[in-house]
Amino acid sequence: MGNPTAAMLVIGDEILSGRTRDANMYHLAQELAGLGHDLAEVRIVSDDAPAIIAAVKALSHGFDHVFTSGGIGPTHDDITADCIAAAFGVPIDVRADARALLEVHYARTGSELNKARLRMARIPEGAILIDNPVSIAPGFTLGNVHVMAGVPAVFKTMVASVLATLAGGEPLVSRSLEIHRGEGDIAGPLAALANDFPDLSIGCYPFRKDGIHGANIVVRGHDAVQIDAAMIRLKQEVAV
Amino acid sequence: MGNPTAAMLVIGDEILSGRTRDANMYHLAQELAGLGHDLAEVRIVSDDAPAIIAAVKALSHGFDHVFTSGGIGPTHDDITADCIAAAFGVPIDVRADARALLEVHYARTGSELNKARLRMARIPEGAILIDNPVSIAPGFTLGNVHVMAGVPAVFKTMVASVLATLAGGEPLVSRSLEIHRGEGDIAGPLAALANDFPDLSIGCYPFRKDGIHGANIVVRGHDAVQIDAAMIRLKQEVAV
Repeated sequence: MGNPTAAMLVIGDEILSGRTRDANMYHLAQELAGLGHDLAEVRIVSDDAPAIIAAVKALSHGFDHVFTSGGIGPTHDDITADCIAAAFGVPIDVRADARALLEVHYARTGSELNKARLRMARIPEGAILIDNPVSIAPGFTLGNVHVMAGVPAVFKTMVASVLATLAGGEPLVSRSLEIHRGEGDIAGPLAALANDFPDLSIGCYPFRKDGIHGANIVVRGHDAVQIDAAMIRLKQEVAV
Repeated sequence: MGNPTAAMLVIGDEILSGRTRDANMYHLAQELAGLGHDLAEVRIVSDDAPAIIAAVKALSHGFDHVFTSGGIGPTHDDITADCIAAAFGVPIDVRADARALLEVHYARTGSELNKARLRMARIPEGAILIDNPVSIAPGFTLGNVHVMAGVPAVFKTMVASVLATLAGGEPLVSRSLEIHRGEGDIAGPLAALANDFPDLSIGCYPFRKDGIHGANIVVRGHDAVQIDAAMIRLKQEVAV
């Protein structure tokens, strides 16, 4: 297929504790599908340095791009930047351009650029800043790892900034067909279809509605001609 | 802390492609918090055998319990059971008790127990079945890995069955306080608080509402007395 591969690393206790339902992963998955990058793995770890460092190393070796969310604010549990530096074996310190962004912002809003806020200007050596028009404190890209905020509004603007700099692949195209037969009745023809279209992903998502068993068949891939051909066979051989 | 540790493995393309927003992880996280198991990591991988097998091995070695969702239906993309068997190095085949469950069910509903449906009776050697009152096809536990369906209604009943068999730890208690100060203004006293209560997790989740910056401070832990003490200090030293 040749599309770039991607992984996401979500950092923070709020999803693992059940307090918050994920929103950033759902957003990134949709954006990457549109850009033509194949999101192949997601990991969610807590605010724990060894876990974050191990995940960054594994994912940055395994995939073309890694997108992280969370842990870059001013409080004690914001340890992502230090963990990224450790994973890449580079130093980290307050950087002048990041500090300047914060100085202008806090002078304008009348808040103090105290020691805690200055933590947000700590950038690993060699990183490129990611713009944050919402709350100014920047994200950064180091190697193939894009480090972004966990606050959904900020995460979204950072994703938009980063993806605008990346070459796209073939966008993922999805078509679906609702079938009113049991999943077990259509599994045989579906497997044959999947076998005949090895470049497509053919998923089957069963449901029960008003007492009737059915399934949504979702055909995903990068070649619209192949998808059209698969959908025609799906209607002829599976939906009947 | 001594609580059991847990990890979750979500298997399937539907979340990675952005089609579906996660629901099962959110449910399991809440249930585990109530039981007193510490959910420490979640991984999401696609319907890809090497990725599934590698994740099962890593998580089953790293944590007390692993909970998987997805990939145990009758269609070609349902490869979870075979991957679990491969990860543990045990054989897998149709098992008589699982087959009997399906025979009774499909005889009653008038559907054929065809080859595809019989796949759902393939159980790795040595596994214990997990009851499925919703759609009958069982999940299973092998070693410390609990293998459950991805359909949310079925996943929920299987989680309830499995968790009923596990010894609990100290349930996770969460208290939160909404503070109308900027995150950067409270970071210092928050860090001091976190330092004085090393057994508690103290998270800070900033928000902006009607133009006002604030943060929700969430204190989590297993000892209600410590949490009470931390909340008192939070109100005295941070909220002012």
